Amino acid sequence: MTIPAHRIAFGERLRTLRRELGWSSQEAFAHHVGLDRTYISGLERGSRNPTLDVIVKLAHGLDVKPAELLSTIY
Amino acid sequence: MTIPAHRIAFGERLRTLRRELGWSSQEAFAHHVGLDRTYISGLERGSRNPTLDVIVKLAHGLDVKPAELLSTIY
Repeated sequence: MTIPAHRIAFGERLRTLRRELGWSSQEAFAHHVGLDRTYISGLERGSRNPTLDVIVKLAHGLDVKPAELLSTIY
Repeated sequence: MTIPAHRIAFGERLRTLRRELGWSSQEAFAHHVGLDRTYISGLERGSRNPTLDVIVKLAHGLDVKPAELLSTIY
């Protein structure tokens, strides 16, 4: 299955913000936000399609506004 | 079930942008973006939890960046 461009952009943005904001490990960040590491990995690769509730949970865990996670998507 | 504040904010934002950008009817906008009118109605009331794919589809239908739909969410 081809991964849509917006999912790739979201995943790259999540990975960039996660690392920039001090969560070098997917495992530690996953625990912090209460999600599974494999799910975080899938989001960062673009294979998962997060809901609004999950986007907000990720943003809160990173201490950024939810819109920041979508800022590179067109 | 209590509707989370971010869903209410998203729904109000969607309704505002839809009307501002010329789609006075949910039915016409739903047809434009290829979704059901009852689903658009549920999104605007906050009862539905859209995926990233749906957020992007709505944004494209409105001709705004996806982040614009989340701009009022904290």
